[in-house]
Amino acid sequence: MSLTIYGVLRSRASRPVWLAHELGLDFQHVPVIQSYRLADADAAAADAPLNTASPDFLAVNPNGMVPSLKDGDFVLHESLAICLYLARKAGGPLAPRDPQEEALMTQWALWAATEVEPKSLSILRGVDVEANAAALRRPFAVLEKQLQAGGGFVLGGRFTTADIMVAEIVRYAAANKALFADFPAISSWIATAQARPAHQRMAADRAKEPA
Amino acid sequence: MSLTIYGVLRSRASRPVWLAHELGLDFQHVPVIQSYRLADADAAAADAPLNTASPDFLAVNPNGMVPSLKDGDFVLHESLAICLYLARKAGGPLAPRDPQEEALMTQWALWAATEVEPKSLSILRGVDVEANAAALRRPFAVLEKQLQAGGGFVLGGRFTTADIMVAEIVRYAAANKALFADFPAISSWIATAQARPAHQRMAADRAKEPA
Repeated sequence: MSLTIYGVLRSRASRPVWLAHELGLDFQHVPVIQSYRLADADAAAADAPLNTASPDFLAVNPNGMVPSLKDGDFVLHESLAICLYLARKAGGPLAPRDPQEEALMTQWALWAATEVEPKSLSILRGVDVEANAAALRRPFAVLEKQLQAGGGFVLGGRFTTADIMVAEIVRYAAANKALFADFPAISSWIATAQARPAHQRMAADRAKEPA
Repeated sequence: MSLTIYGVLRSRASRPVWLAHELGLDFQHVPVIQSYRLADADAAAADAPLNTASPDFLAVNPNGMVPSLKDGDFVLHESLAICLYLARKAGGPLAPRDPQEEALMTQWALWAATEVEPKSLSILRGVDVEANAAALRRPFAVLEKQLQAGGGFVLGGRFTTADIMVAEIVRYAAANKALFADFPAISSWIATAQARPAHQRMAADRAKEPA
């Protein structure tokens, strides 16, 4: 079955692409850009680059958001759902080993998407930075303890898809060095995760994309 | 194994409790109240009702949020992760039938939690109602089409855990009748879902809780 991941790497597509490299998957990458990064007129123009407002992409995802995945005829949206699907399908150490790990991976994905991402993304965008950094201290304290108790991993005592999903959301806040300075386990965990060859490969490709 | 769901029904605990009734599960319900609904001094007092700031509950969930689940020694947080876990464990028509349905249920859970809930919850709380109702039109249009194409269900051509998860998030916006008037498939779907005996049982118990 042919596998396609839609979305520039300067989007949440970085998550499934990093994971796909970890899993050694053969996939096509279609760098759909977010329409809000183009001028409004450009996004709708026939000669605009493929973007989240392009009819061709809206036919794939009517939400007009990246990433999306096509696995043969099966279409899936939401970056964290895509990561969990790819991991389960591939199996191995990055995938859940049993129903409890399956549930915990889903728990941490939802936790990161709702408790961390709105705030970390605001920090990335320079919006209300101090208030958002202050509000992240409670969820970061939970993650810090979890990493300390779990041998430096989110769950399962090993590097899994959960680490990728959570690290990719936590890193949005990285510019706030004062915040990270107070959470040494998080700082060490994210540095170790980003040093992995699969992340380095994704990050090198991302650096080649227009800013 | 003994099953315990923590959280008053006037919280996201309504989701797993509704589902547990659908599945006919035998469970204990511990009505932990949100600390923000108590005066600050009350929440910390030794004679305060069990709440999300109580040491006894923080030992269950260090995030200090409800619901949480205990299944024997296994502890799980995040209402939608709990729903997916209970459904998978029980099997049957409300559970995913294959890896693709599994992925789509996770997709719709994440979609509802990130694209709908912040806005629908703001409407419930009376915050920026008009702006949030306007912002919900795009995700509601996506759901409306999905329900029309899917025989009145979120996925799988039948009532599943996905309908419970999404309906419980969409309903927060129900006070905005002008919004729902423009989405007849959503209005009909949510009314049908809430007419189910398992929902009625949960809603009747919820109505007995202090407002």
